[in-house]
Amino acid sequence: MKVVKFGGSSLADGPEYEHAINIITADPERRVAVTSAPGKRHDGDIKVTDLLIKYAKAVINDEDTNTLVSQIFNRYQAIADYFHLPADQLASIKGRLLALPKQDYPNDHYLMAAFKAHGERLNAELMALVLNHLGHNARLVTPEEAGIRVTGTPNNASVSPETYALLDRLTYADNELLVFPGFYGITMAGHIATFSRGGSDITGAILARGLHADMYENFTDVDAIYSANPNVIDHPQPISKMTYREMRELSYAGFSVFHDEALIPAIQGNVPINVKNTNHPEKPGTLIVPDQSFQPTDIITGIVSGKHFGAIYLHKYLLNKQSGFTLRILQILARHHVSYEHMPSGIDDITIILDKNQINDSLIDTICNEIQKEINPDRLEWINNYAIIMVVGEGMKNRTGVINDILSPLAEKHIAVPMINQGASRIAIMIGTYNEDADAAVAAIYHRFFAN
Amino acid sequence: MKVVKFGGSSLADGPEYEHAINIITADPERRVAVTSAPGKRHDGDIKVTDLLIKYAKAVINDEDTNTLVSQIFNRYQAIADYFHLPADQLASIKGRLLALPKQDYPNDHYLMAAFKAHGERLNAELMALVLNHLGHNARLVTPEEAGIRVTGTPNNASVSPETYALLDRLTYADNELLVFPGFYGITMAGHIATFSRGGSDITGAILARGLHADMYENFTDVDAIYSANPNVIDHPQPISKMTYREMRELSYAGFSVFHDEALIPAIQGNVPINVKNTNHPEKPGTLIVPDQSFQPTDIITGIVSGKHFGAIYLHKYLLNKQSGFTLRILQILARHHVSYEHMPSGIDDITIILDKNQINDSLIDTICNEIQKEINPDRLEWINNYAIIMVVGEGMKNRTGVINDILSPLAEKHIAVPMINQGASRIAIMIGTYNEDADAAVAAIYHRFFAN
Repeated sequence: MKVVKFGGSSLADGPEYEHAINIITADPERRVAVTSAPGKRHDGDIKVTDLLIKYAKAVINDEDTNTLVSQIFNRYQAIADYFHLPADQLASIKGRLLALPKQDYPNDHYLMAAFKAHGERLNAELMALVLNHLGHNARLVTPEEAGIRVTGTPNNASVSPETYALLDRLTYADNELLVFPGFYGITMAGHIATFSRGGSDITGAILARGLHADMYENFTDVDAIYSANPNVIDHPQPISKMTYREMRELSYAGFSVFHDEALIPAIQGNVPINVKNTNHPEKPGTLIVPDQSFQPTDIITGIVSGKHFGAIYLHKYLLNKQSGFTLRILQILARHHVSYEHMPSGIDDITIILDKNQINDSLIDTICNEIQKEINPDRLEWINNYAIIMVVGEGMKNRTGVINDILSPLAEKHIAVPMINQGASRIAIMIGTYNEDADAAVAAIYHRFFAN
Repeated sequence: MKVVKFGGSSLADGPEYEHAINIITADPERRVAVTSAPGKRHDGDIKVTDLLIKYAKAVINDEDTNTLVSQIFNRYQAIADYFHLPADQLASIKGRLLALPKQDYPNDHYLMAAFKAHGERLNAELMALVLNHLGHNARLVTPEEAGIRVTGTPNNASVSPETYALLDRLTYADNELLVFPGFYGITMAGHIATFSRGGSDITGAILARGLHADMYENFTDVDAIYSANPNVIDHPQPISKMTYREMRELSYAGFSVFHDEALIPAIQGNVPINVKNTNHPEKPGTLIVPDQSFQPTDIITGIVSGKHFGAIYLHKYLLNKQSGFTLRILQILARHHVSYEHMPSGIDDITIILDKNQINDSLIDTICNEIQKEINPDRLEWINNYAIIMVVGEGMKNRTGVINDILSPLAEKHIAVPMINQGASRIAIMIGTYNEDADAAVAAIYHRFFAN
């Protein structure tokens, strides 16, 4: 049995919907479909999720919502019209959309979550209607019914373990297609809470695990996951197969094709993931498989860079003998709710690499002042333009000399490498560089490994 | 003005003493001499410090001490005889040795410290006597008189800042030679406390700073500090000049020629250090200078390996998103008074490298159990045979491609490199390897950089 998930661009309009339905019905193993909200139909278009956010804000601010409701409903209407769905069948979707402001919400965060979730919720309802209209035996199943239970904050929830016990009780007929809305679950108190943005991938993975799927197919708008960013490398080589942990290492610094939190249920259920293109379902896409079942043929699977880092550099003579100083630095960071990314250290120095998304200049000043006061280093510096390059590949694991091949093209191009960090995992090498050099570094490494 | 310090092997017997005295008196700038305790005269000999430790233990255990006292006194007597010192001049030395058990000590740790310190104390007294006997104007100055104040534990003390104010008041005549015993200072309560073993280097550095010396000459039994361990590399190249921080990086993993704690007073006073051979004072030795004043000619200054490491390897999916986990691991280590050396991390894993001198198998079990319970990682491993290689050189700082030159000879020899760690300091690269490969790795790197 296969769980199939479609991204927002794959469900943006009638023709895309038709592709998706052809895919669902082409393989009798495809029994569970997960919908995103309709995405952009063209450059400059607005995603339904973003329209729903506007709708929620208008309700919170007590502004007029008529235009927004029409805009949102028209998106579903246009898809229904493409399939000549009788107009009265859309009454439930319209009714739900209009009823959204009248529900009880514990606070505006829950209101926002519920509005956003309806992009997926209404799209699943429409998908089931269209499938039935086309003569297929389809049934809408909501997280409420199936028991997708979540905890955490309303707009960044996590799945609860009891979900899997509840999913085990879900039954369906032999010829039945189930359509699930992605992106959200239900709290213990019965409220809607969403996963982080792009979280329909997570719902698909939860269902793949919970319903014991043999494969989780993730349909999106690219042919495959590529070995490097196409904005940096022209026509990079597609990755035909990689392991869960390779995907994880690559998604860290920027590969955003597949939501990395969605890997966890797949790993727990040992379900392989196939990332494919809705518009070219005949192409093999990228297969993501358990770590053990993989014999790599290439040395390097992918190279990715992230430019959103900064670093605190600290030097103090005999720092190394001063037991507990790292503990004190981490306590300062924890006090300001800042987490660190990596902490390469020398004998008398340490570099604390931070994700700049969680900080601003004044917070950095505060943290540096507190470190200065508590640790009294000889030198303390903030490096603002830190970039991290990840070179990932299971094929590196049992080979010596790979680092050499990674670094020599950088040396040839005189690219500074202030940090090299290779942990015991052996499937990834992390290189620190500066923002201005990051693209050139990725290109240099890429061409060394993928030129031929 | 120069402060001159002699190691134990340079004061082991009459002929060595004579070398030392020739050195002191050959340069009128040499005004302050610091003595160690007499060291080994030949293989199988016992250092006076070790005899004094036996003497202290015998006193603590209420055993007979006559033989030990004779053995110790005979060492000083033999030196005195070599210079034909009148026998009655040694009465004070003998008296102090016999009086040691009769002093009041707060506890056995202080007793041990006072006994050990007398190796240096009595040797300084003898040196002053011999110098005077030879017609020089020498004066014994003890830490008690000069005001070398210390805090901390009795056998691992640290100098107190007021020492420098007190040393500023020390005056001496134009033609006067001062002889100081190394290795110990006086606590606030007036008790003797020693520095860590080899701590006469520290006394010399304190005096060099406190008396505003232009140079701190450290005489020992090697011609220079070498660019690699002579037990691993045949006739390694001597280091003619290096910076304080290069010395620090090299002493970390094993270079033990010069006590690394002794660098601090020298750095604080900006006093250059010259490590020289007592038996070949005409050779230039190794000059250790402030970081700023140095224009390196070589890329690499030295390579050293330490085999006394182990590592906890921890893998957990989405570890990186689990804020505060490192804090919790460090709190577990702090609870057991264990400090870490380095902590290279990947996306989902972290390697915590520990100095094995501070742990044992049962403590590692306890720590791993607590980490398992608190962090619940997917994988937790103890790597027992971790070695660290430090490749050090100011010349690496502004050059790209050095790592490449370091790693390619290792790749050629198929030596596994589970960790590479280069912090922002840029003057050292740390390589993790396994004990069985460490010597071969040092040799391979050495021959790449020093072959020609």
